[in-house]
Amino acid sequence: MGPVQLADTRRDVVLRLLEMLREAHGRKADLVVFPELALTTFFPRYWMSQEEAQARYFETGMPGPDTQPLFDEACKLGIGFYLGYAELTPGGQPYNASILVDKTGGIVGKYRKIHLPGHDDHKLDAPFQHLEKKYFNVGDKTFGVWDTLGARIGMCLCNDRRWPETWRVMALQSAEVVVLGYNTPSLNIHWPEPVHLRMHHHLVTLQASAYQNCVWAAAAAKCGSENGHHMIGGSVIVAPTGEIVAQASTEGDEVIMVNADLSLGDTFRKHVFDFARHRRPEHYALIVDRIGPGEPLR
Amino acid sequence: MGPVQLADTRRDVVLRLLEMLREAHGRKADLVVFPELALTTFFPRYWMSQEEAQARYFETGMPGPDTQPLFDEACKLGIGFYLGYAELTPGGQPYNASILVDKTGGIVGKYRKIHLPGHDDHKLDAPFQHLEKKYFNVGDKTFGVWDTLGARIGMCLCNDRRWPETWRVMALQSAEVVVLGYNTPSLNIHWPEPVHLRMHHHLVTLQASAYQNCVWAAAAAKCGSENGHHMIGGSVIVAPTGEIVAQASTEGDEVIMVNADLSLGDTFRKHVFDFARHRRPEHYALIVDRIGPGEPLR
Repeated sequence: MGPVQLADTRRDVVLRLLEMLREAHGRKADLVVFPELALTTFFPRYWMSQEEAQARYFETGMPGPDTQPLFDEACKLGIGFYLGYAELTPGGQPYNASILVDKTGGIVGKYRKIHLPGHDDHKLDAPFQHLEKKYFNVGDKTFGVWDTLGARIGMCLCNDRRWPETWRVMALQSAEVVVLGYNTPSLNIHWPEPVHLRMHHHLVTLQASAYQNCVWAAAAAKCGSENGHHMIGGSVIVAPTGEIVAQASTEGDEVIMVNADLSLGDTFRKHVFDFARHRRPEHYALIVDRIGPGEPLR
Repeated sequence: MGPVQLADTRRDVVLRLLEMLREAHGRKADLVVFPELALTTFFPRYWMSQEEAQARYFETGMPGPDTQPLFDEACKLGIGFYLGYAELTPGGQPYNASILVDKTGGIVGKYRKIHLPGHDDHKLDAPFQHLEKKYFNVGDKTFGVWDTLGARIGMCLCNDRRWPETWRVMALQSAEVVVLGYNTPSLNIHWPEPVHLRMHHHLVTLQASAYQNCVWAAAAAKCGSENGHHMIGGSVIVAPTGEIVAQASTEGDEVIMVNADLSLGDTFRKHVFDFARHRRPEHYALIVDRIGPGEPLR
């Protein structure tokens, strides 16, 4: 998905999502994966008050008046979708969230982002901010997997994909497909990281994680330049072999599609990654016992 | 390292290891990584009794008479090494083990393989066996990290590298370098997996794991054809950027070398992978609570 500018309305954005939904349906897709925070610009790059952020960028209901057409069209066409957006709960709790919608337009699952990157302070020397830790709470539930659309589908968001724990918790719930949206700035505000590495990390992490967890992975970028702030593209669909089987070639709105053979994952689950035979949780305790790194055990 | 044939003696093999040790020293290396089960052929491909395997292929002491020259030369040159071998303890317990030896020729760390691949039954229809589960016990200690040779160095072996838990447990002990040896058959005995995928899985997993854990990784193959059984090569050194910075280009004895800047890992540890700020172990419980995959949590 191409950029969303500050001046774009949610109505403008939903029209673009509808266009892609229809194209995907024309290509016989069952499920469309839209990006993280798909309805607005990637606003965590701007410093503002919580109140201003929530008033301008958060959804208080889903579907809401502007997003209802997406649900209606999905139901009419008989196609499911994943959508990322900023959620403000009735109790006033803010989350970076995603939903999974089935072919009847019903929400079957919700996920609230766990690995929030960035910071919560105003970095005056940075070219822009990355304020996810300011605007969002950490997700209140672990990673989930839902039986829908003929598959077991897990959800995560953006930075979650870099953490192997994310994938493993879904694989241990028998996920066959993992879907995620992301917004990844091309510039690293902390050090002059070469831009090509940002894409490399995105791709190599998805490929290894799909392989190690025997899942199909579909990752959808919002990308290109939002009011002068460029984000990497590289939306991909990765097979359980770790191979990229479809990749976006533009930084605009673009539909990529595969007909995923779910049994390809079974081949790996039965042999090299037969978890029940090969995993050794008795030696993994440190993964839950420590948060940050510590001294060697001996 | 090229193949070891059934007819080769340990003395023959140690002469080859000494040659590579000297070449590495000439290139100013501090540490040399030798393969898994480096002293013999990859014997888990053959069905035999435990007694026969132990008599032919296991070391009852380290150093032993045949390996002593390696320790002596390392001490004389002032160079450390990692070596994989089949260990039979004084109590008669068999392990697929590795040791880390410092510049004085002293053993500073030992690791016993945790993720044993393959099977323990005789697969009569298979072109060869993969009997690690027959000949070895599962390692009795978790992954370790040792402060030696100017770095914090973790060890694992072969199939361990495919499991993200392996790397994480070492990163949580502040590993800066991970070293490992492997023997990976080119043929998958369970299904007709394309050979190029075997190499792809090896490389993509190392690259993602080095990046996700902010470590330098050095992986040494024993490769080429052992009595008609071909194994993939692809020995590599991977930077914490996830980039391959050195790769073997032959299937014979070959030394590859890098001068690793350990501070490159710090850059990632301080920002995107600042574990203390970003990890959420409260959502990782399933990783230790389940062995195999189960039902979705909700």
